Amino acid sequence: MPRVAPLSGFPEWLPAGRVVEQHVIDVMTSTFALFGYAGIETRAVEPVESLLSKGETSKEIYLLRRLQAEAAEADAGESQLGLHFDLTVPFARYVAENSGRLTFPFKRFQVQKVWRGERPQDGRFREFVQADIDVVAPDELPAHFEIEVPVVMATAFERLRELGVPQARVSVNNRRVSQGFYEGLGIEDVDGTLRVIDKLDKIGAGGVLAALQAEVGASEEQARACLALAEITATDASVADQVLALGVRTPLLEQGLDELVGLVEGAAALVPGVVVADLKIARGLDYYTGSVYETTLLGHENLGSICSGGRYDSLVDDGSTTYPGVGMSVGISRLVSRLLRDELVRPTRPVPTAVLVAVVDEDTRDRSNAIARRLRARGIATEVAPVAAKFGKQIRYADRRDIPFVWFPGAGAGDDGEPGDGEVKDIRSGDQVAAEADTWQPPADDLRPRVVPAGEPR
Amino acid sequence: MPRVAPLSGFPEWLPAGRVVEQHVIDVMTSTFALFGYAGIETRAVEPVESLLSKGETSKEIYLLRRLQAEAAEADAGESQLGLHFDLTVPFARYVAENSGRLTFPFKRFQVQKVWRGERPQDGRFREFVQADIDVVAPDELPAHFEIEVPVVMATAFERLRELGVPQARVSVNNRRVSQGFYEGLGIEDVDGTLRVIDKLDKIGAGGVLAALQAEVGASEEQARACLALAEITATDASVADQVLALGVRTPLLEQGLDELVGLVEGAAALVPGVVVADLKIARGLDYYTGSVYETTLLGHENLGSICSGGRYDSLVDDGSTTYPGVGMSVGISRLVSRLLRDELVRPTRPVPTAVLVAVVDEDTRDRSNAIARRLRARGIATEVAPVAAKFGKQIRYADRRDIPFVWFPGAGAGDDGEPGDGEVKDIRSGDQVAAEADTWQPPADDLRPRVVPAGEPR
Repeated sequence: MPRVAPLSGFPEWLPAGRVVEQHVIDVMTSTFALFGYAGIETRAVEPVESLLSKGETSKEIYLLRRLQAEAAEADAGESQLGLHFDLTVPFARYVAENSGRLTFPFKRFQVQKVWRGERPQDGRFREFVQADIDVVAPDELPAHFEIEVPVVMATAFERLRELGVPQARVSVNNRRVSQGFYEGLGIEDVDGTLRVIDKLDKIGAGGVLAALQAEVGASEEQARACLALAEITATDASVADQVLALGVRTPLLEQGLDELVGLVEGAAALVPGVVVADLKIARGLDYYTGSVYETTLLGHENLGSICSGGRYDSLVDDGSTTYPGVGMSVGISRLVSRLLRDELVRPTRPVPTAVLVAVVDEDTRDRSNAIARRLRARGIATEVAPVAAKFGKQIRYADRRDIPFVWFPGAGAGDDGEPGDGEVKDIRSGDQVAAEADTWQPPADDLRPRVVPAGEPR
Repeated sequence: MPRVAPLSGFPEWLPAGRVVEQHVIDVMTSTFALFGYAGIETRAVEPVESLLSKGETSKEIYLLRRLQAEAAEADAGESQLGLHFDLTVPFARYVAENSGRLTFPFKRFQVQKVWRGERPQDGRFREFVQADIDVVAPDELPAHFEIEVPVVMATAFERLRELGVPQARVSVNNRRVSQGFYEGLGIEDVDGTLRVIDKLDKIGAGGVLAALQAEVGASEEQARACLALAEITATDASVADQVLALGVRTPLLEQGLDELVGLVEGAAALVPGVVVADLKIARGLDYYTGSVYETTLLGHENLGSICSGGRYDSLVDDGSTTYPGVGMSVGISRLVSRLLRDELVRPTRPVPTAVLVAVVDEDTRDRSNAIARRLRARGIATEVAPVAAKFGKQIRYADRRDIPFVWFPGAGAGDDGEPGDGEVKDIRSGDQVAAEADTWQPPADDLRPRVVPAGEPR
């Protein structure tokens, strides 16, 4: 007997939940494709030294070993393997391994599970699905890709709103703005300052002021200036005026502000009202060098960022060339777990089936099969009743699965082109009409399961 | 620097190969949905005692441990986890865990990676994708599902032929036929006999005769009868006549023959010419109790079976109820690796992009962006040229990716509804026409990448 207790941190959805997850993924990947991003998959494992090259996450890695000692010996000459904890490290390795066979700029999306040996908490899992996009190019990456990547994600989140997903806000900043400003203030520990600012939402303004003085060695005046910078938000070019009004001005800061203004204005032209400059966005990872991004759902800010990323310069390197890039990663499992927990959305049904063909008696099951075959040939998902029970019981089979139509075979059922295929009942309205399997069509909304806002009537 | 050598047994595809894999998966899953199978995903890990309950595959399991000893201690109270080596064990556990929340008969499909710590060979991987369907029901499963499951797979393989995948043959047998026949002959070791027959293609008729006598203790006459049974094939009810002509008759054998005839006749009515009774099909796993299935590609028999399964009685058990079932599993990676190795199919392009919008100069990139936005709003995958290079270079960018159309923005480009969006060139024919972004439509065949037989002209 298999052990049947759920494993903490390894979420699984019932069929209805999986319909929601699949729809979210479909909206994401179809949006990525609209912008020309090609889908790839990488293996689940990487040599542990490759995983450790990002350093800080080392404690979260799951290592693999074979069950049999004999087999373990056979592996002796091979690298120790671990499960990837994100899709960025494998992507960097994939590009380095295949750089001679890819065309650049290389734009790819990737939707896969990742694993982290963390203690599970609300919205944090040990196994979860991420959906990433990245663009990389050898030596130089044009700055407009730093606009495109958040525009792609903002477009995807706007499309998700039709399903009932709350509105997203993509908050953006630029490392050059923070670094130029801190340096202009005379602060030396830029990374330390960023790490403190990154905690603003958790520890509050007072906590940030205290930590900047205690941990980074800032004066109170420097700390207050850093906090004032972090409190700036804007949806247009006014962000530059607000920053410069703080009285600090360096070439790096001005370059960063130009890029940041270009980003918010460019994004506003392509997908209005989603991308916001928010100067407290710091991102913990130290490999970001330009734009940085975080995404929250309005009304669900306590979920944290569900889509983050930024511009990096030296993550991808094939030994002779460096490939600067920019990317963002959606936490699909985190998003879907909230949609399900709060019942924000619902699938119109948990099965693909649009029509259940009833079976009059087991001797005529072939007639029901033939009707199903003809409906399927026209793309209509169809099941045949599992047992020739009383029709009331067969209708309940459909009703329990929210299958909208039940087909009752008639005398001519099964003979292609012959009249008399029977009648089809919409079990929601009770309407029943005579129909032929080669011509009857369900309403477009009933053809496939859809995901709709939870409040929408059935 | 990440290590960039490929890992043996962990296949990865370039973007063009991934287009092929994704299309194969899409044809499979859309066929499963047409028959009413609901998609689920299960976690990648199971407690090792659950994985070991299938016994024979124990040596292939990858176990997990956390990198940090500290974390390992925190896990002390938890089960040792391993990566699943198929999708059947996790499915059985999922049904047992959720039996109160599922509707039965439960029909599900599942497309996921699985891992086996095997020594890699041609067509055998350590990490690979499987696509499974199964139907389970409490206590009793109607026999017609043993017809439906191979019909679903045969339908999917017939649809794959449009992509250039070779024709499939689904070979079927029934354990009751083999067991009833062997018992009727007076052979006691039925499982041992099945294991020898399973090797017929590898060791030949002479090898089978010798092994049945040496390993199972059969007489030469018994061995010859077993071989004669194994050599029977048929596409219709004649299979029963051929078997009974061998002079053995038991109730179990006759029940098995009735079921087998029902299967080949039922399958022929729904998807003609694919399902064949082949009485050498044995399947190694001892949990099958009725129909068993294997699938080969014509002309690629040396690849082995790419889709196998059967009827089982006691695999799924929630502690109070047993759920008999029937299922089949497609080896997606094995199939795709052969399609790519032998170049049997090709994608029309390796990127989703249908249109590249050229950029006249960097100052007017926003006009190109606006055209792209309007094309995308109508579902046309569009990229904007990464650099405002000479048009010849921008055309080469499209050409290297097999993007069929390049759009040259005109004077009015970007203003919705204003004339003068420019001209669009089919870079295959060289034809160039004036076009408006809100109305121009590419031919349906060019809208998305397709997978076509390798010989089909571009």
